[in-house]
Amino acid sequence: MKSLVPKVLHPVGGRAMLDHAIDAAEALGCERVVVVVGAHSPEVRAHVEKRLGAAAIAVQDPPLGTGHAVRAAETALAGFAGEVIITYGDVPLLKARDIEAAFGGGEGVTVVGFEARDPTGYGRLLIDADGGLEAIVEHKEASPDQLKITACNSGVMAAPARLLFELLAEVRNDNAKGEYYLTDVVALARERAAPTRTVMADEDAVMGVNAQSELAAAEALFQKVRREDLLAAGVTMAAPDTVHVSWDTEIGGGTTVEPYVVFGPGVKIAAGARIRAFSHLEGATVAAGAEVGPYARLRPGADLGEGARVGNFVEVKNVRMAAGAKANHLAYLGDGDVGAKANIGAGTIFCNYDGFFKHRTTVGEGAFVGSNSSLVAPVSIGAGAMVGSGSVITKDVAPGDLALARGQQTAKPGWAAKFMDMMRAKKAAKT
Amino acid sequence: MKSLVPKVLHPVGGRAMLDHAIDAAEALGCERVVVVVGAHSPEVRAHVEKRLGAAAIAVQDPPLGTGHAVRAAETALAGFAGEVIITYGDVPLLKARDIEAAFGGGEGVTVVGFEARDPTGYGRLLIDADGGLEAIVEHKEASPDQLKITACNSGVMAAPARLLFELLAEVRNDNAKGEYYLTDVVALARERAAPTRTVMADEDAVMGVNAQSELAAAEALFQKVRREDLLAAGVTMAAPDTVHVSWDTEIGGGTTVEPYVVFGPGVKIAAGARIRAFSHLEGATVAAGAEVGPYARLRPGADLGEGARVGNFVEVKNVRMAAGAKANHLAYLGDGDVGAKANIGAGTIFCNYDGFFKHRTTVGEGAFVGSNSSLVAPVSIGAGAMVGSGSVITKDVAPGDLALARGQQTAKPGWAAKFMDMMRAKKAAKT
Amino acid sequence: MKSLVPKVLHPVGGRAMLDHAIDAAEALGCERVVVVVGAHSPEVRAHVEKRLGAAAIAVQDPPLGTGHAVRAAETALAGFAGEVIITYGDVPLLKARDIEAAFGGGEGVTVVGFEARDPTGYGRLLIDADGGLEAIVEHKEASPDQLKITACNSGVMAAPARLLFELLAEVRNDNAKGEYYLTDVVALARERAAPTRTVMADEDAVMGVNAQSELAAAEALFQKVRREDLLAAGVTMAAPDTVHVSWDTEIGGGTTVEPYVVFGPGVKIAAGARIRAFSHLEGATVAAGAEVGPYARLRPGADLGEGARVGNFVEVKNVRMAAGAKANHLAYLGDGDVGAKANIGAGTIFCNYDGFFKHRTTVGEGAFVGSNSSLVAPVSIGAGAMVGSGSVITKDVAPGDLALARGQQTAKPGWAAKFMDMMRAKKAAKT
Repeated sequence: MKSLVPKVLHPVGGRAMLDHAIDAAEALGCERVVVVVGAHSPEVRAHVEKRLGAAAIAVQDPPLGTGHAVRAAETALAGFAGEVIITYGDVPLLKARDIEAAFGGGEGVTVVGFEARDPTGYGRLLIDADGGLEAIVEHKEASPDQLKITACNSGVMAAPARLLFELLAEVRNDNAKGEYYLTDVVALARERAAPTRTVMADEDAVMGVNAQSELAAAEALFQKVRREDLLAAGVTMAAPDTVHVSWDTEIGGGTTVEPYVVFGPGVKIAAGARIRAFSHLEGATVAAGAEVGPYARLRPGADLGEGARVGNFVEVKNVRMAAGAKANHLAYLGDGDVGAKANIGAGTIFCNYDGFFKHRTTVGEGAFVGSNSSLVAPVSIGAGAMVGSGSVITKDVAPGDLALARGQQTAKPGWAAKFMDMMRAKKAAKT
Repeated sequence: MKSLVPKVLHPVGGRAMLDHAIDAAEALGCERVVVVVGAHSPEVRAHVEKRLGAAAIAVQDPPLGTGHAVRAAETALAGFAGEVIITYGDVPLLKARDIEAAFGGGEGVTVVGFEARDPTGYGRLLIDADGGLEAIVEHKEASPDQLKITACNSGVMAAPARLLFELLAEVRNDNAKGEYYLTDVVALARERAAPTRTVMADEDAVMGVNAQSELAAAEALFQKVRREDLLAAGVTMAAPDTVHVSWDTEIGGGTTVEPYVVFGPGVKIAAGARIRAFSHLEGATVAAGAEVGPYARLRPGADLGEGARVGNFVEVKNVRMAAGAKANHLAYLGDGDVGAKANIGAGTIFCNYDGFFKHRTTVGEGAFVGSNSSLVAPVSIGAGAMVGSGSVITKDVAPGDLALARGQQTAKPGWAAKFMDMMRAKKAAKT
Repeated sequence: MKSLVPKVLHPVGGRAMLDHAIDAAEALGCERVVVVVGAHSPEVRAHVEKRLGAAAIAVQDPPLGTGHAVRAAETALAGFAGEVIITYGDVPLLKARDIEAAFGGGEGVTVVGFEARDPTGYGRLLIDADGGLEAIVEHKEASPDQLKITACNSGVMAAPARLLFELLAEVRNDNAKGEYYLTDVVALARERAAPTRTVMADEDAVMGVNAQSELAAAEALFQKVRREDLLAAGVTMAAPDTVHVSWDTEIGGGTTVEPYVVFGPGVKIAAGARIRAFSHLEGATVAAGAEVGPYARLRPGADLGEGARVGNFVEVKNVRMAAGAKANHLAYLGDGDVGAKANIGAGTIFCNYDGFFKHRTTVGEGAFVGSNSSLVAPVSIGAGAMVGSGSVITKDVAPGDLALARGQQTAKPGWAAKFMDMMRAKKAAKT
């Protein structure tokens, strides 16, 4: 990947590839999930520990091949007598439904295969007359006839835990690279007459990511499927290819999403809302009848009630906007509450940060905050109160009051005319 | 569609599909346009009434099939002796030129067909040896040989009014669904030896929309054609696929449109303008030499004169900006006039709304409005006047005057240093 | 092109097509570059003169064909005894590596050909049994058998200068258009038994641009290649097709570029930065760990140090932001310096323009500028100083001081309630 970020932590649909893999394992109903990590990936280790706890981590050190990696999980699975399924942290599109058929193979080994559009580079699956898996032949070692086989090994494999680890113990590293290959368990199973079989999955579902271009390709496939889901659910999108969603984006039917909208993780949009062009949402909730954008940015904790309105060049973070509240133009609303039908004028800033701590701003129901105001938090604007344009509000405003904090307007007659004449002369002299 | 909006009111190119259909009928030169609506579509009814008047509406209640729908228009067409053409509110790409050949079929029935890339699901056109239309066979009832026919029924049909309604009166509903099918008129015409013929149209032109995915597909086709038209007219677009236009967008040759620009309805751009990336225009007029964006939002009534300039994060609504006027950064200009070569500073707000009514702001020729100013409308800044930065202007400023409305700058020596020390300590204590 | 801009000055990847052609010539190591311009292209002439000097210009007046155009360069190349290569200002994707094989053809003529996916319209290359180029047959004059040839003439040709101009002197204009064709030199060379040969180039590399649609196609090819280069270099892009780069864009591996980012010319991004969605950069430098956007606009001279942060709806022009400096929301920073870890509040404006001249703003290390402030340049905020929200700062602020410039907050008890009641009544009366 040529990246500073460990490969499996790169996101697809706004979620680390590794988490997609764990999601699939959990959705399969796996009793235990063990993640084998390398010694040189403290970030991956921390990521897994945060989600699954330290007991779910098995360290492979040094890395001596795929078979060796799986063996590293043996201790963590001590006492587990069920079936084991082996998946990968860099196969982000794999869902439980793609591989659930791999379970139930009895006292044998099941390999998940796929029909490759172009099998070049993949291990080929040699199926015997009875439909059993005879062997997996690596591309390099395949005969001309075997190279024509398009059924390939996805790498996903299932077997009863006891059998799996017995076979792995027999795998040898007498090959060019000196590694222990997981695929060798197939031949070893055949040797002891254990059944070996194949279940097929969709090629896209088992695609692995080993380069930035493949990560982008996986993302494109992810987006394609999710966009089709949204259209099928009744979301109107004039240009669905320009709408980018995350793994957990929820949008109700009858909502319109205009072109060029990015949904980061954690967004829930009700039915019958409108998300206008060039908007960016993350961790936000939007109720029915609300309108967002164009050019609106909703950050985590933005919570728009029914019919609320956040317009162009407005940023909302950690603010609840009650029904019918509006902030239509060029504003920053950070850390606060805006009451129903309150109107936040253009250019208004919730000054939530003093350089050290964050504070909250409260705007009451039906209040009217004039343009270019600065509300210096912690501060409260009462219900039905008004703030004059350009005011810096540092003290609470009582309900129904008008607060002003601005200089008196004064005029210097003719000053501008004289100044401009002088400057024009200066400019002319310079050029 | 799974939408709250009636299907035919969904837009393509920023215009309701139904209006595209009416546009085509009007462009065909139809003397009368009658829209058959269901009883359960008050929004559709209101939409048609607004455009064509109540006389143009025929209600089909209850819905008993396509033939029954057309019969519903009989009263509205009473006394009309010309040819009738039947089109659909969910066929948004159909233009007059696609179907004008359907007229002139004499005392017979003309069906508009198309060559289907994939005919699955469509009614097949059975053409006899003389080129006449023998019958329309529904997909379900087609023989294996008939299924191979790729000439399909678009649903568009033309016939003299008298003949059409006579035939419709003979249509029976003795079928599985108990409906009266429009297509039955072909067989009925043959029975009375009236000529039946087919004229072919392009498949894309007759595509129907029955799902959000089809709406998106129609929009994509619409955009593709319009983008090619603009390129052919001499508009420079580095990434035409990222430029979204509306049905009535006008852009002069020699204008550059950068990537990621959305044109809502009602936009006219002269030749030789420049629309920069991430801009959003709607109901706006832009003259030659003007530059818009990046990230500019022009709303209805924005009218930019020659060489005017609206820059990033600026919203303009219902404001005429005369030649050479500029608002380059972070501003909201709503309801007003800006004189030639006037300069609106960054962060300026036209405070046009008092919570109840909108008011106008006038900025005279050559005036200079300092940054972060609030112009509280109704208010006027005279020609060549200046407004000091950060001023809240509530009273008119005379030409050539300088207006200021801000507090005196005061310093609290060492205050910041002490405050920061204290806060640092507080923060350290908390963590 | 139907444009006001001369064709060869239209950009691909943010650089005029003509400059791409000159770049290729220079990269080939050409001793001299001569650009033949028409008499009616003063902009092209000025463009070339600026880059290469007046001596590099040869004027063809009137235009009498391609051979005539090359002859126009004879004087400018007087005394040059080396090889000449003829390329075109409207072939923007041609790189030195595509045509370097055209040199070294000895005392003969080398034509650069390409295998056309669709040869319609192109001159066909007739290769003789020895691999020599027998003739170039124009599409219109080709026999049915010759029309099947897919090896086509790119127009690029190389020959020793003396031979080339001797042959050009023999070219005649006894054809339908009365023009002197460059391609005639092949036959003339054969007549005098000079060797004629072909070297092949990639079709995309030699594509010519003669319409806006072809310009867009060239841009798309350019972007495709550059995006693949960036992915291969370790740049993470979830949607590479939505990232637009310029000819000289540099982005380090391990940097993430989110969807919808436009890079104008002159951008350098270090490894390990993050460019968020909807950002627009031009002439900007971004260091490791810095984060830009979403919706950030960096203009020429924006220079972000390590870990600096420019957030949504912020414009930065000609400002150095030292390590850890932040401007997170709705601000305009023009012409200045921001010290390390300084914090520029939301809505802050550097008032750099007085209507005539630009001035600089300096913000010291660790300073905190409150929201909605206006810093009227020239002005300096000392290290560790603070500026209260909403202040208009016209005088320097000493290090560690707090500066305020705003009105006192006053309240008009009950005023808002009365006003709103009155306005509600007024509104009700109006409707």
